[in-house]
Amino acid sequence: MTGLLRKTNLDSDLISKIYHYSELGSTNNVARSMILKEKKQGFVIFSKTQSSGYGQRGNYWESPEGGLWCSFAIKPDISPSKIGLIPSLCALSVAKALKSYNISTRLKWPNDILNSSDNKKIGGIIVEGKVSSTILEYLIIGIGINVNNTLDQYSLPLRTNITTTLEITKTNISLFELLNTIIKYLEEGLYKIESGEEKVILLEWKEWDNILGREIVITSNNIEYEGIAKDLTLFGQIILELDDGRKITFSSGHVSLCL
Amino acid sequence: MTGLLRKTNLDSDLISKIYHYSELGSTNNVARSMILKEKKQGFVIFSKTQSSGYGQRGNYWESPEGGLWCSFAIKPDISPSKIGLIPSLCALSVAKALKSYNISTRLKWPNDILNSSDNKKIGGIIVEGKVSSTILEYLIIGIGINVNNTLDQYSLPLRTNITTTLEITKTNISLFELLNTIIKYLEEGLYKIESGEEKVILLEWKEWDNILGREIVITSNNIEYEGIAKDLTLFGQIILELDDGRKITFSSGHVSLCL
Repeated sequence: MTGLLRKTNLDSDLISKIYHYSELGSTNNVARSMILKEKKQGFVIFSKTQSSGYGQRGNYWESPEGGLWCSFAIKPDISPSKIGLIPSLCALSVAKALKSYNISTRLKWPNDILNSSDNKKIGGIIVEGKVSSTILEYLIIGIGINVNNTLDQYSLPLRTNITTTLEITKTNISLFELLNTIIKYLEEGLYKIESGEEKVILLEWKEWDNILGREIVITSNNIEYEGIAKDLTLFGQIILELDDGRKITFSSGHVSLCL
Repeated sequence: MTGLLRKTNLDSDLISKIYHYSELGSTNNVARSMILKEKKQGFVIFSKTQSSGYGQRGNYWESPEGGLWCSFAIKPDISPSKIGLIPSLCALSVAKALKSYNISTRLKWPNDILNSSDNKKIGGIIVEGKVSSTILEYLIIGIGINVNNTLDQYSLPLRTNITTTLEITKTNISLFELLNTIIKYLEEGLYKIESGEEKVILLEWKEWDNILGREIVITSNNIEYEGIAKDLTLFGQIILELDDGRKITFSSGHVSLCL
């Protein structure tokens, strides 16, 4: 069953349409197909459930009914060299949207949204895209948030590591309203990047950041690096300081905190 | 069946033992277990076949009998900041070893060894490891080379993309001798890095390189970037130049050539 939500309440130049599905394999895969086959962008693919949703490194992403599982297909007018900041901006937009529901989160570089009281995962972001020469051809932003879900909707191993907004607030929230709020913050942020104010994104990130100043392990390119997370760069990279003061900059990787 | 090859003909400070197996899941996994459980290094795990060998991004690596499937577990005395050059050094060492059998190869950043006449893949490298503070705790270097194999030992999809040294030279070569030659070149290269001569590795790589100056697509962190491969850095990174002259540096990624 497929429906097309109208642009009602969607005060956005970025997104003109939201395609609504009951069940999909992966919203990112559907978004990519539509971009490549139909050459369109400026839409959101929204599905009540995903049977084969995925996150970073292709990891399976459990997507039971009640969560926000969607993918944005957009083509913002930003320089390819600034794309590294997009995952951070997306995570930040989700954090700000959740704050408007009084849900307090922290961000773990590059793209995890954690519940601030217990560090359990509320959501994550995966950004895919294509840069041809000087042009950003498209971005697909996959967003997964555990919203109106109970923990028993998830597999046993996951239940100890995640939480949902329902678990936190004991209240259901409107997925469409949440999506709309995320779009608003994403659009504001993209406009800042377009107009050369990407430093603002970085400063805002730091207010929500969970790892700067802490001892972490980054796994990048199959090597584990242990050190202190020192800073983020305007390209969305993280700077790790080793014990001897030498610094290594990473543009991607998986972070774990040293407890 | 497990045997331990003696250090006969192994003129190496880097490797003191070669553990020889008939069949393993993955030589990298066995090497990692031995490092973590028995706290040893300075050895090679060699297996006639692997049932679940893997390469970059966890991709399944077909390992039929006749090929060189092995993993080095070493702890060279090099600075963590220089580790990015290790994958390049390993690929270079394999290329040099194959040259001693008159097999002419080209290298595709970061770690593919291609037959120079038809660009078909002869082998690949995967480097894993751990850096704690200022110390490189260990490196696991997985090496896979299609040697005394016929193409019908591989799955149909792979047959059009790979070749083997047997296909090229119509002659079998000694896997142990090939391994020994690779160890020699790897050890020479590591010594150069230890002694601050890593620029030599970079210059040597450029003699074997297949992509510098060419139009390529790098997929890094889920984004595809199209541009000209301009240069490699002393940290093993590749520099891509976009059409407007802006440059982006990548420390990891999958490269495809634009034909």
